[in-house]
Amino acid sequence: MRGRRAVGVPELVAGARDGDARSVARLISLVEDGGPAVREVAAALAPHAGRAHVVGLTGPPGVGKSTTTTALVRAHRRAGRRVGVLAVDPSSPFSGGALLGDRVRMGDHAGDPGVYIRSMATRGHLGGLAWGTPQALRVLDAAGCDVVLVETVGVGQSELEIASLADTTLVLLAPGMGDGVQAAKAGILEVADVLVVNQADRDGADRTVRDLRAMTALGGRGDGAWRPPICATVAVREADNGIDVVLEATAAHRRWLDASGEGHRRRTGRAAREIEAIALTGLRERMAAVRGSAALHALAQRVAAGATDPFSAADALLAQV
Amino acid sequence: MRGRRAVGVPELVAGARDGDARSVARLISLVEDGGPAVREVAAALAPHAGRAHVVGLTGPPGVGKSTTTTALVRAHRRAGRRVGVLAVDPSSPFSGGALLGDRVRMGDHAGDPGVYIRSMATRGHLGGLAWGTPQALRVLDAAGCDVVLVETVGVGQSELEIASLADTTLVLLAPGMGDGVQAAKAGILEVADVLVVNQADRDGADRTVRDLRAMTALGGRGDGAWRPPICATVAVREADNGIDVVLEATAAHRRWLDASGEGHRRRTGRAAREIEAIALTGLRERMAAVRGSAALHALAQRVAAGATDPFSAADALLAQV
Repeated sequence: MRGRRAVGVPELVAGARDGDARSVARLISLVEDGGPAVREVAAALAPHAGRAHVVGLTGPPGVGKSTTTTALVRAHRRAGRRVGVLAVDPSSPFSGGALLGDRVRMGDHAGDPGVYIRSMATRGHLGGLAWGTPQALRVLDAAGCDVVLVETVGVGQSELEIASLADTTLVLLAPGMGDGVQAAKAGILEVADVLVVNQADRDGADRTVRDLRAMTALGGRGDGAWRPPICATVAVREADNGIDVVLEATAAHRRWLDASGEGHRRRTGRAAREIEAIALTGLRERMAAVRGSAALHALAQRVAAGATDPFSAADALLAQV
Repeated sequence: MRGRRAVGVPELVAGARDGDARSVARLISLVEDGGPAVREVAAALAPHAGRAHVVGLTGPPGVGKSTTTTALVRAHRRAGRRVGVLAVDPSSPFSGGALLGDRVRMGDHAGDPGVYIRSMATRGHLGGLAWGTPQALRVLDAAGCDVVLVETVGVGQSELEIASLADTTLVLLAPGMGDGVQAAKAGILEVADVLVVNQADRDGADRTVRDLRAMTALGGRGDGAWRPPICATVAVREADNGIDVVLEATAAHRRWLDASGEGHRRRTGRAAREIEAIALTGLRERMAAVRGSAALHALAQRVAAGATDPFSAADALLAQV
């Protein structure tokens, strides 16, 4: 691995744009590591990103997110689209950093150059989503993916985070396990652009769809607002699984994003949160470095001796940490 | 007032060192305001401070801190020492920013050029103690005060703060109102270098002294450690008030500070906390400025458009705030 690091970031970005899967994987590793190279990668990617449709999938564990992701990949590939998958769900068979495992799981796409699959470690600062996820999205975007699917677990804050990363957020539910009322309580309906009731061949599916329809009708929405469509799927089936309806709903949402200006607003808001997070992390690291540092002690000696004043010492300290 | 501002900081520092009370008052106002001039004042004072013995007085309201301060000032003046008083106790008659009120209260020192009396606003960042207090101490120190008495209310965190500012901390108690056990619970015994039982002519004074003696004897202290002496006073009396014993105990503590190296350690620790507080305040102000700023929104537009990357944008943001 160390030897391969000799390949520079510009070469990796050029390779990724040419469709080289190893370059894509190396770039994602670099941004996931969070080392100093992340800055160089981000700078090199900036001009080449912003084209892909980022689609988030969230929902409670067991609802069939991985199966749905697989079905979506298959459908997109049939339509000739290049697809990226970022799995940031620790319960997902995609996750754990095992790219080999990913390929096994996504068996029929193992040798397909039009699909990039990647798990992200969830050790990041943004709760369930890894710190490097926005950068990894940019890698896949710059590599020419038409669609990037981001799969995360719908627990705690992560559904809000995925909504802050994605252009379009799919919220998956299943009959009986997460009925509409519970979903509403958990706040995940608010982030849904498209609602998917998976395992729709199970008992209670109709009721779940009915509940969701009633709830989405309740929300006071203005003219031209997006009302989340509700799709029933059986993602595990090879055919007649309802996935095409999800694709249509997702495409319709993207058209609405473009036409309404909401897409631009979301992307700008996402960039602002990312910049803010990076700036605040830098400042927090400096605050931690200030406390109890050897530099502070040396400067305190000088202030106590009257050799300098505390404001100049604070400036000197901040210049050092 | 505005016209008088034309006098520069160097002239004010020179005036203060020559014993000009108005220059002292102007410098304290500048550091209390917390404006940009505080940096210039701090830099100009640094070489001239570090000589005064800073003595903190704390204790519950009603224990007689102001009376004791007055008695201490009188005793120090009799010994020919120059004295500064900083009152940061909102319940003190010295406080409220009324220098005129102070002079009335300290009637017999109103025209005495060897006494500077000043109240500090308590709006500061350090809880009960004003942000500018360490700088105000330096003003009085540079002005040639042999002793600076800092009076604060013994509520909440302020007794810990005064201990962090003072070379020697006097903890005042009174019979019946704050018996030893309560004082121990409040943690104020731990910061005491000298314990003063004021209003010692009241019932229960002996018991309070006995309780305190038992408690200070309990603490496991090593060889050469300082054991806080317990002084009984009736500060309200003109004579035979026990104040000379407090002065002796305070002087003995200062000798111990010098001989043990503890004095140097305290001054260095105090400077370190001050530098740290200034540095952290600066960083916190920058964090607040980052959030929701117009600069952030403009940079987010550029990141969303692919014109820059979020790390460069974060750098640009931090350069602006």
